[in-house]
Amino acid sequence: MAIPVETFYLNPDGQGTLQAQIQQMIAAGILSGRFRVGEKLPSSRKLARHLGVSRITVTLAYTELLANDYLVSRGRSGYFVSENAPIPPTYDPPAATEDNVDWSRALARSFTGGDTPRKPADWHSFRFPFIYGQADPTLFDHANWRLCALRALGQRDFASMTGDYYDEDDPLLVEFIARNTLPRRGITARPTEILITLGAQNALWLTAQILLNRRRKAAIEDPCYYSLRDLLMQARCPLTPVAVDADGLPPAAIPDDTDVIFTTPSHQSPTTATMPLDRRRALLDRAREIDALIIEDDYEFEMAFLGAPSPALKSLDRDGRVIYIGSFSKSLFPGLRLGYLVGSEAFIREARALRASVLRHPPGHIQRTAAYFLSLGHYDAQIRRMASVLHRRRRTIEKAIEEHGLTVAGRGVYGGSSLWMQAPPGSDTARLAEILRERSVLIEPGAPFFAGEDRPTHFYRLGYSSIPSSRIPEGIHRIAQALAS
Amino acid sequence: MAIPVETFYLNPDGQGTLQAQIQQMIAAGILSGRFRVGEKLPSSRKLARHLGVSRITVTLAYTELLANDYLVSRGRSGYFVSENAPIPPTYDPPAATEDNVDWSRALARSFTGGDTPRKPADWHSFRFPFIYGQADPTLFDHANWRLCALRALGQRDFASMTGDYYDEDDPLLVEFIARNTLPRRGITARPTEILITLGAQNALWLTAQILLNRRRKAAIEDPCYYSLRDLLMQARCPLTPVAVDADGLPPAAIPDDTDVIFTTPSHQSPTTATMPLDRRRALLDRAREIDALIIEDDYEFEMAFLGAPSPALKSLDRDGRVIYIGSFSKSLFPGLRLGYLVGSEAFIREARALRASVLRHPPGHIQRTAAYFLSLGHYDAQIRRMASVLHRRRRTIEKAIEEHGLTVAGRGVYGGSSLWMQAPPGSDTARLAEILRERSVLIEPGAPFFAGEDRPTHFYRLGYSSIPSSRIPEGIHRIAQALAS
Repeated sequence: MAIPVETFYLNPDGQGTLQAQIQQMIAAGILSGRFRVGEKLPSSRKLARHLGVSRITVTLAYTELLANDYLVSRGRSGYFVSENAPIPPTYDPPAATEDNVDWSRALARSFTGGDTPRKPADWHSFRFPFIYGQADPTLFDHANWRLCALRALGQRDFASMTGDYYDEDDPLLVEFIARNTLPRRGITARPTEILITLGAQNALWLTAQILLNRRRKAAIEDPCYYSLRDLLMQARCPLTPVAVDADGLPPAAIPDDTDVIFTTPSHQSPTTATMPLDRRRALLDRAREIDALIIEDDYEFEMAFLGAPSPALKSLDRDGRVIYIGSFSKSLFPGLRLGYLVGSEAFIREARALRASVLRHPPGHIQRTAAYFLSLGHYDAQIRRMASVLHRRRRTIEKAIEEHGLTVAGRGVYGGSSLWMQAPPGSDTARLAEILRERSVLIEPGAPFFAGEDRPTHFYRLGYSSIPSSRIPEGIHRIAQALAS
Repeated sequence: MAIPVETFYLNPDGQGTLQAQIQQMIAAGILSGRFRVGEKLPSSRKLARHLGVSRITVTLAYTELLANDYLVSRGRSGYFVSENAPIPPTYDPPAATEDNVDWSRALARSFTGGDTPRKPADWHSFRFPFIYGQADPTLFDHANWRLCALRALGQRDFASMTGDYYDEDDPLLVEFIARNTLPRRGITARPTEILITLGAQNALWLTAQILLNRRRKAAIEDPCYYSLRDLLMQARCPLTPVAVDADGLPPAAIPDDTDVIFTTPSHQSPTTATMPLDRRRALLDRAREIDALIIEDDYEFEMAFLGAPSPALKSLDRDGRVIYIGSFSKSLFPGLRLGYLVGSEAFIREARALRASVLRHPPGHIQRTAAYFLSLGHYDAQIRRMASVLHRRRRTIEKAIEEHGLTVAGRGVYGGSSLWMQAPPGSDTARLAEILRERSVLIEPGAPFFAGEDRPTHFYRLGYSSIPSSRIPEGIHRIAQALAS
């Protein structure tokens, strides 16, 4: 590849002769790894014109670099980076500037820290990845996704892919969600009551920014999804963790002064408890009584292979009090970053305005691709295939767990893709996870899900959405071994 | 298409017999447009099992709907939505719930309003669209973008497309930006000093959240990009608009107590002024003197067809004081939503954490597609092609403007894709735009770019990135006509 002439700049504060500066610039580019072996330099004529120097200056610099073995000449084809030049494997230039800014003072707010654990990016290389929420490439209908993406990249859809929509969404995707996805949860919503988000994370974040501040109180489930707790901490609202039981969030335990209730009724995260219909009604009554809003995170409802999922809380809402969050992260793949918010128009209008300010809109091309994948029926086929595989894995993992005498603390009654597990009291599952990692087993320690200082350390989560059935027994065997020792 | 059985739900609070409820549910689905003419209903056996009712109940409901002409029966193939059923063109269900929430009280903050104008989404249908910042489908290398997208959708890249990266970016894209894009601006940066964002809007927003609050003061150019002013108002920081001159932002006019300076030195937005090298140095000196940070929005630097763009302000930064924002919106297309932030590691770390909380990461597939398009050289070819077309359009528009005696208030010395125009003092270009819209001409009124109450109303912007050369003369003619009348 030729190195574009536009990437050459003389430092306006440069020292020495122009020829020396050009030599230095090219040598520095080679030494930092910016230029690679075999790449072609611009002709002396071109570079001279670009830098505004005489051609002989460039020629002399090139000749000097040739003599020092940084470059080789291939006659009339020009100059190339030499094989003998000392080039690092990746581009890692020396720090360009000293940092003379006092960042501890310059930052108005800090967002680092928090409970969200850093998961191993190389989970594919583990033999027994009992991880949660990552796509299993073997389950995804890759061929049809590609066809839908191609169609969305066609001339006809070009405008929807390339245009700036300001604050709008792809109308095809919104209509499909309204007509086909939400009715599966018993929800009736107009397009103006729906907003596409960059995944459920983005939906939760938007909701927190709009409904909460230092004076508004939020109630969250305990344990709960750690990233939710982190983003609420950033919203700086007072937080009350409410301990969940085998039926999920107990309405009576929600404090009277709560403004917003975050809940996962279909499949409590992480305990997997499903909230029974009676409690759903009680929760709605409680919210009405204290005039609170409810944020229903309905993740993973599609993975219902043991029985039909209950209708969403939102479907029972007669007040416009429930804001519903759906996502395609589990059923398609998380890297897609597509989710949606459903709520009253007054709320969706604000969420749309905030989203426009933060990022405008989710990329048009992925919205259109998803719309095609959904509307051509591939999504339904995909869900059925995933459900049947997950069902098989669930039977296998439950059998193995029973054989090895491990203790299940929670399992979704209608399906899901994980089990909530309990090691003997006093165990430290963070330590357990470290030991197991050495044995090519990944599990998720439970402590980060809990609020407060004194967190139970003996829970852990076993995901079965990314591990083939055939490896489950040996994986569980290794967990049992590690627990025993 | 068959209507999936999963989309049928009986209202748990439903009135009347089960048969009546089923009839009502199906009729309501048809009347709201949820079910379309010709769609197949589930078999009575399937629906009965799904709803947990007896099959005869469903059969009786279907028979009744058949009699009322909502459904037709096609013998053994089953029941279909009848052509005679009254079906609205789009799905528009009646409001499901009364809104019993007092949203004026429930919203902790409002994000609607602001200066960002709503532009016509149907700009394609105007003959003379002098609009700014939309992609011209005729200039985009659609075929190679498709090939890159396909490659990024291949099996080998599946993990990068589908995985949850938490807070990471595509390393291929980051390395390309570091090695090839930033050097064109004279900038040396390590991968840890780069963050991919959902477009420049997202980069500006992240920066404002991290560096500003109610006590930190920001200086902005006046006029400036209206969405920047809107998002800074949302960050609630005190704002000082500093009037720009023909060389852009005058450093001496920046107040001593400024914490963060937002500037567009390459191509002032919207006046298109290019800041000379001396003033760039003076601006850096001024920032050092008052210990302020500088946010450099380097949009559109690629459109340099009249001369090489000056090196970025960031390339002269010796303190780590400049945070640089780049974008692919203008050079690829805005719907892509890809931009990047370059700054000190301490800053990028916070921006990464905040981005993770807000949306995790930009979709993997679009990052990888862009990385291929860039690294295979298609991007450079695209830029060259765009530059040559824009150059031709620029000559055409300047000639037409001269012929019709219109007044240019600012034109980019090295290129760009717009001109900043001036109507006679006292004109109202918002009104002018309305009149022109009737004549199939789109222009952008200038007032929203200005801060404060008493905004000049006689400026307007003419973009030439979406209008073919051949239409420019007639478009300018119509503008001159409208101005004369």
